[in-house]
Amino acid sequence: MLITSLQNPSVKNIVKLAKSRERKEQQLFVIEGARELSLALQSDYIVESVYVCWEMFEKTKYPGVLDSMEEKNVLDISPEVFGKIAYRENSDGVVAIAKPKLHTLEYIKLSGNPFVIVLEAVEKPGNLGAILRTADAAAVDAVVVCDPQTDLYNPNVVRSSVGGIFTVQTAVCSSGDAAEWLKNNNITPYAAELQAAEFYQNIDFRTPSAIVMGTEAEGLTDFWLKTAAKRIKIPMRGKIDSLNVSVSTAVLTFEAMRQRGS
Amino acid sequence: MLITSLQNPSVKNIVKLAKSRERKEQQLFVIEGARELSLALQSDYIVESVYVCWEMFEKTKYPGVLDSMEEKNVLDISPEVFGKIAYRENSDGVVAIAKPKLHTLEYIKLSGNPFVIVLEAVEKPGNLGAILRTADAAAVDAVVVCDPQTDLYNPNVVRSSVGGIFTVQTAVCSSGDAAEWLKNNNITPYAAELQAAEFYQNIDFRTPSAIVMGTEAEGLTDFWLKTAAKRIKIPMRGKIDSLNVSVSTAVLTFEAMRQRGS
Repeated sequence: MLITSLQNPSVKNIVKLAKSRERKEQQLFVIEGARELSLALQSDYIVESVYVCWEMFEKTKYPGVLDSMEEKNVLDISPEVFGKIAYRENSDGVVAIAKPKLHTLEYIKLSGNPFVIVLEAVEKPGNLGAILRTADAAAVDAVVVCDPQTDLYNPNVVRSSVGGIFTVQTAVCSSGDAAEWLKNNNITPYAAELQAAEFYQNIDFRTPSAIVMGTEAEGLTDFWLKTAAKRIKIPMRGKIDSLNVSVSTAVLTFEAMRQRGS
Repeated sequence: MLITSLQNPSVKNIVKLAKSRERKEQQLFVIEGARELSLALQSDYIVESVYVCWEMFEKTKYPGVLDSMEEKNVLDISPEVFGKIAYRENSDGVVAIAKPKLHTLEYIKLSGNPFVIVLEAVEKPGNLGAILRTADAAAVDAVVVCDPQTDLYNPNVVRSSVGGIFTVQTAVCSSGDAAEWLKNNNITPYAAELQAAEFYQNIDFRTPSAIVMGTEAEGLTDFWLKTAAKRIKIPMRGKIDSLNVSVSTAVLTFEAMRQRGS
């Protein structure tokens, strides 16, 4: 049966899930895009239902993406309904409802020589998403999000991560817990700070390391500046004296990967 | 005199300038933020008028920013009017109207050993702005924007560049003109491409170099893939196989700066 009514309760509920409170209460979130859905399924997310606007969905591009879904959980929607629930521009006709995972530190499996990104109080969902995308590309062990001001399943995080939210091991915890976890795993934390004495290029990232990134406005709190083994900075040669946090995270992360020969 | 009416013609005109067509016709654009205004003035932009909401503006933070303005060109506005014309969140009470500069290749002054960022057909204003911000931090010689799908003075470019639009030498031109200019200046172009054979870490960026970046969706056109001395890539170790274009630009740029010892 084709859903054409914008008043359909499921349709209205998808719109509701853009709100953090609703995601928390219902323990559900929204995935948009066939590629993102396919990455979520590969990462063993439980997908409750998929809404497909067949006029817009190119099945050939992601041939198997709906195969694992029970037929009753694949719902057909009209372009108007899709327009109502879609969050992105140039979306491809697929929206799904899935269950969040538990993002606690004990679920993280570390490699023999881990590299971890720690974010303190990250504010903008777009920055968090962009960092998850970078974390996927660099294949870091984990992203640890301390005291975030946004939840992981914010639609802008999901969107800007282009699926990184599903593919990257991510924990949400307090700064204290993160610091203890790093210590227990013999991972050296380096705090990124504009006023630091040491340039990042001179750090040896070939041993177990974490970079700790603060907010663009405030930087890191004293807790992390004191906890870190060293404070490091990227040379600022211009007039503006700041970088986007997702950009500085990428510069530090790829320097670590370069040193590690990967 | 305090402007309190949302119907004031100047107020309405500032809102209009969010449109590309209006910016072109009027040869004016909008600067928001005291810091951005101060960078524009330092970079010899002609600022026609400044609208200040004194309740929101912390003069002490940018003490001299209004000093060079003639009194008649500093207009007081109410918080309501500011709310109407402000584009950003957490804005600081200052909006100015300025004249665009001419962004042609012949205005660019190169250093003895230039490093240039070339962007082909960049689509998203946010990405262009983020790249200008990075270009400022790395103090590259210039950003050359080929056949852009957005104009430089789009409010989202100005905003996300946090002033980089004013501090970085930027030219807008065709790909053909850019290639010729690089050649005439003995600058070697390297084309970033996902399928390239060569990793960026193995390129010697210590001589005059340019990185050429395509769109996230389509990559570079054949023109640049053929024009470039080499095609280079950033290793992709994850499942998503893509990076944000502003992130990959930053990774390549800071690797070049690292090699150059700056």
